[in-house]
Amino acid sequence: MIVDGVARRSICLSDDGRTVEIIDQTKLPHEFVVRALTNLEQAAEAISAMWVRGAPLIGVTAAYGVALQMAADASDASLATAIARLAATRPTAVNLRWALEGMHAALADLEPTERCAVAYQRAAQLADDDVETCRRIGVHGVVLIEQIARRRRPAEPVQILTHCNAGWLATVDWGTALSPIYQAHDRGIAVHVWVDETRPRNQGASLTAWELGQHGVPHTVIADNAGGHLMQHGRVDLCITGSDRTTATGDVCNKIGTYLKALAAHDNGVPFYAALPHSTIDWSLSDGIAQIPIEEREAREVTHVRGPDGDGRLVEISISPRSSPVANPAFDVTPARLVTGLITERGVCKASRDALLELYPERAGGAEPPGESTAP
Amino acid sequence: MIVDGVARRSICLSDDGRTVEIIDQTKLPHEFVVRALTNLEQAAEAISAMWVRGAPLIGVTAAYGVALQMAADASDASLATAIARLAATRPTAVNLRWALEGMHAALADLEPTERCAVAYQRAAQLADDDVETCRRIGVHGVVLIEQIARRRRPAEPVQILTHCNAGWLATVDWGTALSPIYQAHDRGIAVHVWVDETRPRNQGASLTAWELGQHGVPHTVIADNAGGHLMQHGRVDLCITGSDRTTATGDVCNKIGTYLKALAAHDNGVPFYAALPHSTIDWSLSDGIAQIPIEEREAREVTHVRGPDGDGRLVEISISPRSSPVANPAFDVTPARLVTGLITERGVCKASRDALLELYPERAGGAEPPGESTAP
Repeated sequence: MIVDGVARRSICLSDDGRTVEIIDQTKLPHEFVVRALTNLEQAAEAISAMWVRGAPLIGVTAAYGVALQMAADASDASLATAIARLAATRPTAVNLRWALEGMHAALADLEPTERCAVAYQRAAQLADDDVETCRRIGVHGVVLIEQIARRRRPAEPVQILTHCNAGWLATVDWGTALSPIYQAHDRGIAVHVWVDETRPRNQGASLTAWELGQHGVPHTVIADNAGGHLMQHGRVDLCITGSDRTTATGDVCNKIGTYLKALAAHDNGVPFYAALPHSTIDWSLSDGIAQIPIEEREAREVTHVRGPDGDGRLVEISISPRSSPVANPAFDVTPARLVTGLITERGVCKASRDALLELYPERAGGAEPPGESTAP
Repeated sequence: MIVDGVARRSICLSDDGRTVEIIDQTKLPHEFVVRALTNLEQAAEAISAMWVRGAPLIGVTAAYGVALQMAADASDASLATAIARLAATRPTAVNLRWALEGMHAALADLEPTERCAVAYQRAAQLADDDVETCRRIGVHGVVLIEQIARRRRPAEPVQILTHCNAGWLATVDWGTALSPIYQAHDRGIAVHVWVDETRPRNQGASLTAWELGQHGVPHTVIADNAGGHLMQHGRVDLCITGSDRTTATGDVCNKIGTYLKALAAHDNGVPFYAALPHSTIDWSLSDGIAQIPIEEREAREVTHVRGPDGDGRLVEISISPRSSPVANPAFDVTPARLVTGLITERGVCKASRDALLELYPERAGGAEPPGESTAP
């Protein structure tokens, strides 16, 4: 999408065809810093230091990390080193493991001399596939926005609420939840996005607001507490969030707080959609609340906030008593009964097993462990 | 309640019987600073600079502000000056206006020589009345906690979620929502409080966590987004919040985000109570969502966060793009259908007109404008 008037992806190659460029997302929204990754170690740091985040983008960065290493040393030992080093950066990231397994499978049996070119090719393919998946999510999702716009006076915007960052910064381009919004905006449909700041990590205020602003999409940042009030007063037409993990029955595990917005949407007759690539669907799960373990993250994310002070100096401050304990569950599960529909790259469907199987009939045979599923 | 092992109120007189001591709540939770108010101007600043906040405490501080002025100059002109100066500090605070009207009515017809003593007496009475009201809210509310505790194994705490600060810092002592909790704790009932940080002003993380910690009540700070997840997993037995304004039909207008917690409580079968003195009941209102205008506060509360940096220096940092607009509604309305009950100084009742009139039969005659109601 657009940054400073120029179209770009969250990860791309430099003109030399070797160096990998990523955006240091820890600096957003205050500074736009592009970092050049020229070797394995830098790619690993980009992931572990969270310069890049979002499952698809982490996977693509890891793939390019292998490619960078193959450019330097394409031996068997070097390939093993690269895979091990990158896998250790974010041990729980499913896409990361999947991308690395794919790279290993593609490269292990090749002659070392062939590995570099194939690695770059495969990483680029992974990136392109993700862009195409996200673009299609937008193509299907934009229809929902168009339907509301048609009932509106011209220029009266469709009001969409989103939570966290499921935008192009979390993917390679377009994003998931934001893809329909970008496509509506690009088609000239008036939209306005309520951006939940998304405590404790503030991905809404820092990333979603920034990327929407750069692309020119009208938006307003709100505290996470505000969405219910806005819905009570008819100021939200539609909620669209991402999904980190989706059960075969349509439960949506997403950033903590998503469930509260789904409750408010349900209570006020506001449609609530989750936008997701099929890779987030875990066909082995039927009850998200009972079956999905929720990551408990460090207290410091809640007790400390980072940002520039009046002089532009990045500072971390404390906001609660030092002696008060903190709990920090990172995700919650929105049960399918509160989800109006799922927006996937194959179309929009109800949040139910039957509806998902209609879109993914190849899954009708039965559940498989997620590790053996097709490409995320 | 207890601070540093010593019992204190949020406002009291020094040993000289004249100087008024308050806690500078803008410094909490990082510093405990008691400020001595010795004249009208300091009392006015205490309110306008929000060293004191919470409707009851603002009213009592204003009453003492009049008393301080009467000690310096008890003339008619001086009385008028005091009332006008204090009324201008927080123009929309109902308790402030009510306290000042009461002081004016009590003092205007007296000889100037009598005014100082009567002013101090009346301010002290106002403080004592508030303490007694809050104590009684606790006496009634603690029964709800005891009922849950009785079904528990000994030492297994009753899990209570609260939002914002409706503790003793917002009143003179005990608080409203926290009064039942303090009384349970003081009676030896094991309780644990989930403290919503309460963005954007963080009164939960900064005030509720601090006062619970000082009094020794076990608690855990959470992001506002986390409560629904905790309820889904059976980790909340009871929600208790305050109420800034309550309709005659039991709708509760309280800090933004309260509605989302009430929705989650309802969805998970968790009882949801609002604790309130009858002064917050507006007998003229029957539909909170339609009738209560919601204050829109400044964007800076959302875009900036203040706290000490690593060196203990108080710093204000920015957390969102400078160009992104912000909305900041300060309250929302929880409809009575989501409120299990109201905890008042006269007892616990259903959130309905009939139930409220049973507790307040003197109101059965019909609605009155709130300005003419009995003492808040």
